[in-house]
Amino acid sequence: MVGVSEGPAGFQAIRETNLGIVLRTIREQAPCSRALVAGATGLTKATVSSIVADLIGRGLVRETGQQAERKVGRPGVMLTLDHQTLAAIGLEINVDYVSIVAVDLLEQELLTEHVEFDARAAGPEACARRLRDALLEVIGDPLMRRRALLGVSVAVPGLIDSASGTVTNAPNLDWHGFALRDRLSALLADAGHPGLALLVDNDANLGAIAEYRGGHLARTPDLVYITGEVGIGAGLLMDGRLLRGSGGFAGELGHIPLLKDGPACGCGRRGCLEALAGVDAVLRRALPDVLAPERTASIDVGAMVDLTVQRAEAGDPTVLEALEDAGTWLGRGAATLVNLLNPRAVVFGGYFVPLAPWLLPPCRAVLGAHVFAADSGGCRVDASALGLSAAARGGAMALVDALDTGALPLPPSRSAA
Amino acid sequence: MVGVSEGPAGFQAIRETNLGIVLRTIREQAPCSRALVAGATGLTKATVSSIVADLIGRGLVRETGQQAERKVGRPGVMLTLDHQTLAAIGLEINVDYVSIVAVDLLEQELLTEHVEFDARAAGPEACARRLRDALLEVIGDPLMRRRALLGVSVAVPGLIDSASGTVTNAPNLDWHGFALRDRLSALLADAGHPGLALLVDNDANLGAIAEYRGGHLARTPDLVYITGEVGIGAGLLMDGRLLRGSGGFAGELGHIPLLKDGPACGCGRRGCLEALAGVDAVLRRALPDVLAPERTASIDVGAMVDLTVQRAEAGDPTVLEALEDAGTWLGRGAATLVNLLNPRAVVFGGYFVPLAPWLLPPCRAVLGAHVFAADSGGCRVDASALGLSAAARGGAMALVDALDTGALPLPPSRSAA
Repeated sequence: MVGVSEGPAGFQAIRETNLGIVLRTIREQAPCSRALVAGATGLTKATVSSIVADLIGRGLVRETGQQAERKVGRPGVMLTLDHQTLAAIGLEINVDYVSIVAVDLLEQELLTEHVEFDARAAGPEACARRLRDALLEVIGDPLMRRRALLGVSVAVPGLIDSASGTVTNAPNLDWHGFALRDRLSALLADAGHPGLALLVDNDANLGAIAEYRGGHLARTPDLVYITGEVGIGAGLLMDGRLLRGSGGFAGELGHIPLLKDGPACGCGRRGCLEALAGVDAVLRRALPDVLAPERTASIDVGAMVDLTVQRAEAGDPTVLEALEDAGTWLGRGAATLVNLLNPRAVVFGGYFVPLAPWLLPPCRAVLGAHVFAADSGGCRVDASALGLSAAARGGAMALVDALDTGALPLPPSRSAA
Repeated sequence: MVGVSEGPAGFQAIRETNLGIVLRTIREQAPCSRALVAGATGLTKATVSSIVADLIGRGLVRETGQQAERKVGRPGVMLTLDHQTLAAIGLEINVDYVSIVAVDLLEQELLTEHVEFDARAAGPEACARRLRDALLEVIGDPLMRRRALLGVSVAVPGLIDSASGTVTNAPNLDWHGFALRDRLSALLADAGHPGLALLVDNDANLGAIAEYRGGHLARTPDLVYITGEVGIGAGLLMDGRLLRGSGGFAGELGHIPLLKDGPACGCGRRGCLEALAGVDAVLRRALPDVLAPERTASIDVGAMVDLTVQRAEAGDPTVLEALEDAGTWLGRGAATLVNLLNPRAVVFGGYFVPLAPWLLPPCRAVLGAHVFAADSGGCRVDASALGLSAAARGGAMALVDALDTGALPLPPSRSAA
């Protein structure tokens, strides 16, 4: 790692870059001494000392009681990330729920909430207000009250223009061109929280980050995370980096055309994977005595998934056939993805997790049959262990990560506040 | 750019790394002075002078007559890549031809050859001998006789284990586990050319490199190149880097499962894109009076493509229907790829180029209809301008590129030879 100690950029820019570099070094090496940071970065000890003082002032770094092992000289004081003063909050809004996860700087979970909410029926403005209320509640929680907020991320099932925080197209929410970041920012300012850093991203992308950083296959360099909600999306981590494509629209696995003249999809097309194996489609085929065959009104997805699991465990042939069929289509979708990207792991999340005992066996069989490379190209197919909070958690983690890279402003110094 | 001037590695390794760094700097900045190289790399002027002398001795760099513009002091001599002493050769073997392209260090084409050859009927051993003969002929060409050989690359339509140069599976050639690099290396040693650097790679990957470096959409950072031979493959350049996947098996677009219980594919499965829209499948459907409906013997693909173009121009309804149908399937394949990867451009190569006037309109229409992001996510669909030599050319370019990165050994000093 090379510190930036000279160059054409202004002093302030250099200082901020160096703050990020020192912060990252402490994150990776903690507990570590100032001397180690100087050695690893190439910065002078005086510069490191000044930057560390700054980072301590901002609540990002703290000194530990532990002393560096040194053979000679004064015992060194060790540095580590300060996990007690700051928090990052990730929200997810999906068709039938809002999820909230708060983490500290070590990405440890501070609290998790899951609230059922009919987002589609509510419409975008009521959804933005629901997100604001959820956020204010978390900020007011005793566990959070002493912490300053690093920022807030919002996961949305749809195409996002992340530069502006606008949801371009989220058919399952019926949002089209909704400037979510601006709206939520204004609502929070009115509620006494102006200037909060807000990021908006696709739910599958953020779920993939959570899976890569904290799932049971964490650090698998080529990993695909597939959301299992009413919609299906894929977060593609290739070589540990999110593959977003030229316009940020990569990973739309739910809308690959799998069956000519197939069933109608929420996007207006026919035969998309989502229309064949999305959770809404699966439930309507599994529970014909309870649900209408075509999407009309919203359904209580969580309760219907529970009922489907119950009936599957009891051996209900209609349910088993619907799950077998959906697993087969998921297998064709996964085979397509694996033929194109050759990942090491495909992880199914969301409501696919409770349905996995029935979906994954046919899915794996089709994958094995339709991947050109032997042994599915070495790809493992699993259910996620993260549940419905994956995207919210990944968003909170992404905020912590963004601190190092300058993508997120550093929190102000507490002495100045 | 930072030169390596100290560290734990041995002197020889450091020297070689620095040779690569200086070579890359000269390639990017040429014509440039030694002083500029020193400034750009952080190496001392003495080190740069010594390395430049070494690179000149190896035939990689030369001094030009041109003098650096300097206000004061001695006029500097300018450096540039030496394009007169070395050559890199790319070969491609496909179902019905062998292509050869030789380039100099500036990636300028020295010669191109295209030879019809029934590779499938010949079998792997005869193919290796054919490649050796083609290579010896090129090495003996008056245009090449004074040049030393940097290395040779071979493009093959199949799954490659590039570490060992083994063709794991190339169904259209009927090669399975053929150690092509070892065999060709032995044949060349017997012919008086021992120790040649040999790389084996997938034809679509190398075609994508040629398209990215020298096609009409060169430098498009998210670009997919699709081979149009008997087989279909995709080379995926994301953010300017080849996406190979965890085992090197990415880009198998030809074997995504598009039609349940569809026509038989050369890979043994049914309904793969290749079985619906590969050139062999298209020709058999377009020319039912000339060709059998199922693959039995090899066909003269080039002549059959010419006949198809002739009949299409004359308005033959059977031909037009076959091309329309194939274009539609290519559109479904491209829509799948674009939904997943959101590239800026998809370029069809090989025999798809002469057929493009009939294939691309239905392909573009289906793409527009089946990509979830508006306006196909900004993706452009074109025919390649590189013809059947794309993969061979890309392989030769990849060899020149590998010089900088240490992936290929530097040529020996001429004075030592």
